[in-house]
Amino acid sequence: MDKLPDLRRLFYPQSLAMVGASREVRKSGGLFLKSLLDCKYAGRLYPINPSAEEILGLRAYPSLAQVPEAVDLAILTVPAPAVLQAMEDCARAGVKFVIVHTAGFSESGPMGRGLEERVLETARRGGIRIIGPNCMGLFNPRAGINTIVAMMPELVQAQGGVAFVSQSGWVAEEFMIAGYYRGLGFSQVVSVGNQNDLQLAEFLEYYASDPETAVVGAYVEGLREGRPFLEAVQRASRHKPVIIWKGGRTPAGARAALSHTGSLAGRAQVFTAALRQGGALLAEHLAEVVDLCVAFSAPRRPRGRRVGVLTESGGGAVANGDALEACGLEMPVLGSTTQRELRDFLSPFLPPSSGFSNPVDLVWPPAEGYSRIYPRCLELMAPEVDILLLFTYRGLADESLGESLARLGERLGKPLYAVAAWPDTVREGFRLFTRKGVPAFITAERAARAISAVAGYALKI
Amino acid sequence: MDKLPDLRRLFYPQSLAMVGASREVRKSGGLFLKSLLDCKYAGRLYPINPSAEEILGLRAYPSLAQVPEAVDLAILTVPAPAVLQAMEDCARAGVKFVIVHTAGFSESGPMGRGLEERVLETARRGGIRIIGPNCMGLFNPRAGINTIVAMMPELVQAQGGVAFVSQSGWVAEEFMIAGYYRGLGFSQVVSVGNQNDLQLAEFLEYYASDPETAVVGAYVEGLREGRPFLEAVQRASRHKPVIIWKGGRTPAGARAALSHTGSLAGRAQVFTAALRQGGALLAEHLAEVVDLCVAFSAPRRPRGRRVGVLTESGGGAVANGDALEACGLEMPVLGSTTQRELRDFLSPFLPPSSGFSNPVDLVWPPAEGYSRIYPRCLELMAPEVDILLLFTYRGLADESLGESLARLGERLGKPLYAVAAWPDTVREGFRLFTRKGVPAFITAERAARAISAVAGYALKI
Repeated sequence: MDKLPDLRRLFYPQSLAMVGASREVRKSGGLFLKSLLDCKYAGRLYPINPSAEEILGLRAYPSLAQVPEAVDLAILTVPAPAVLQAMEDCARAGVKFVIVHTAGFSESGPMGRGLEERVLETARRGGIRIIGPNCMGLFNPRAGINTIVAMMPELVQAQGGVAFVSQSGWVAEEFMIAGYYRGLGFSQVVSVGNQNDLQLAEFLEYYASDPETAVVGAYVEGLREGRPFLEAVQRASRHKPVIIWKGGRTPAGARAALSHTGSLAGRAQVFTAALRQGGALLAEHLAEVVDLCVAFSAPRRPRGRRVGVLTESGGGAVANGDALEACGLEMPVLGSTTQRELRDFLSPFLPPSSGFSNPVDLVWPPAEGYSRIYPRCLELMAPEVDILLLFTYRGLADESLGESLARLGERLGKPLYAVAAWPDTVREGFRLFTRKGVPAFITAERAARAISAVAGYALKI
Repeated sequence: MDKLPDLRRLFYPQSLAMVGASREVRKSGGLFLKSLLDCKYAGRLYPINPSAEEILGLRAYPSLAQVPEAVDLAILTVPAPAVLQAMEDCARAGVKFVIVHTAGFSESGPMGRGLEERVLETARRGGIRIIGPNCMGLFNPRAGINTIVAMMPELVQAQGGVAFVSQSGWVAEEFMIAGYYRGLGFSQVVSVGNQNDLQLAEFLEYYASDPETAVVGAYVEGLREGRPFLEAVQRASRHKPVIIWKGGRTPAGARAALSHTGSLAGRAQVFTAALRQGGALLAEHLAEVVDLCVAFSAPRRPRGRRVGVLTESGGGAVANGDALEACGLEMPVLGSTTQRELRDFLSPFLPPSSGFSNPVDLVWPPAEGYSRIYPRCLELMAPEVDILLLFTYRGLADESLGESLARLGERLGKPLYAVAAWPDTVREGFRLFTRKGVPAFITAERAARAISAVAGYALKI
């Protein structure tokens, strides 16, 4: 690996050229340009197109040579045969970073590999660092850049501390979309494609030292050299949680990886064992990456494994009990004083059948409003547990409940999580709760796995 | 167990009395009555309320004694202390079935247990069969009855062959809600509560012989006697797939189960081993129950384990390959003739980087329309595989694609499944595709698990 480049100019370019800019949003060069406008990219933006004077209201330039400055970042969406010439133009124009979105390079066979090598040589001569080729580029909501899920401008609102780097465009996309609906806030996401020049490892190094990033995620299929990546994981894990999903773990998956990013998936078990050894948190699938990021980006982490569960359903109490205990968490029986206090407080609202031992079962959401009753119950339970978990039917639809729970968590200094009993009916609630600092989960099982991982991480440190 | 009752009158009551009927939909007696009207229950409906002459446009009766006929079904929502008297009224009036929605019986301690026993004695003397107490009742979309998720009248449209019986009201509810959004069609769902009289086993027996039911699901926490349930599972499994989720598998879950339905969860491992031995398909959690029902209610089941994957994403190809192979399914390399045919057919639409070996990677959804290209690709792949799987970004949003895939599956006589690359952006598509006969899944991993289970079941028979 070359010495570490300063990637801040890549993530926060003051000027950006869109090479292959188009009016048609069906083409990447149109879609990306429209996204930059939708996301209110604040730098100077130069559409490059040999046969247009204006595109989407911006002055267009026939080539990079006419652009009045050496831009920080150029994004290439021109067809593969035109990429080499475009890279030469970039080199001559003094461009610092180039994202090569175009596919048809080393992942497509020997001819593509040869072309990719010549593109790299040209870039090296010009002092350019390349992201890609065969990649979806980057997402930095604070800079107003999103080429990864360019058709969802609302993503730019989702600012926060979660960074992600992915060897697959789709994984980067779905991580962002699923994460957005779950309330994640992002610092940066990068789709690295074939990693012709800039590697997964270099982005991990950047994320490790980036003050905007608190949680790091990565998707890796296979690497020509595993060691730099492992070392970067090791170093980053000393500072921040590093969550990794490894693709190509089976022969069929590895075969697909080879034709996808042209990389050998390698001996997966050896590699994942080394990652775990290096301090990474390994996720089994993409949904788990999202769950872990939701749990880790919360304002507090557990200081123990005892969970207090407040539920509106007996069946939910069973499901949460099973899920928590299967993940190595505990659901201790509350002391008799606490049980009596809960019973006294709840008796005006509840039928006599309720359980108070933990889980505390509210049976039916009382008409008096969530925000009065639930925080008080959780507060009464808190001294005997390290973690508070609310299993609720419609609670996630109640903004004032989210607010009072967030305040309660802060006052108690203990992490507070929510699980939806009917997730399809409270879709907005996941974003609402997680954004406020109360991570919300779709099922008891997914919550338990993620909470257990955070507890394990927090207790080890 | 008593000799088997004819439960058809319960599921298709020609007359129904709502005891505790109310104008207030915050009360169960109001909510259930409104639901019966919303769902267009076609039988004769009698609201019972001592202090109303009319409720929601229906003539109300002060007591069951005034109702001009012996109703097939009475639903009790009166408070626990009033249930015994209400059951006596039912006995005198010749009611056949009574759903006791009210809680506060054996699940709440010795006093409740005593009351529950007296209610049962009264019912026995009157020849009444009881569902409950402490239950959510039943859902039969063809009869226009839904007391389980009474606030979602659209559920009544979801008619089909999936039956479910649950020891937890929440599990029944969430099974219906999640299943509805996934495109399941239901025959009947029952929430049995404390199983004072009618047991899980009796509903399994009914479902096994019910011509409207093709797939049977059950949630069980614990039983006073395990044997009748095991025998019913055994018998039903001879005719139909029986999918079971067992709650209370850990000490914490079992403790919650005890206070929930007053039942001992028992030695979970022994019990689940016996269930598997008896032919049941065991689900790990509720989402898996839904996935399995989606996969099993499709028009065709696999005759082998070879899967052909058509994808729009390289990362998706890897994820599906990993997921399928981890579940014991195969993704064979397609023969050179098939690969050439695919290449020839796709060359006008695709860049040269695509893979044709299986997975077949379309790289980018072509502008020419899904319904022309995708079915042809799948048709070319079909001779070499037993199962076809499409991994798609926006395909689930395209109704014409759903239709052409459904027709293709019929013509080929092979099962065809879809997995969403961006599930949050095509939510309606799951219902659309599954209802047409192309089961659609939220992730590659969930699809693989469910498809593998169906293949295992189909190959054993």
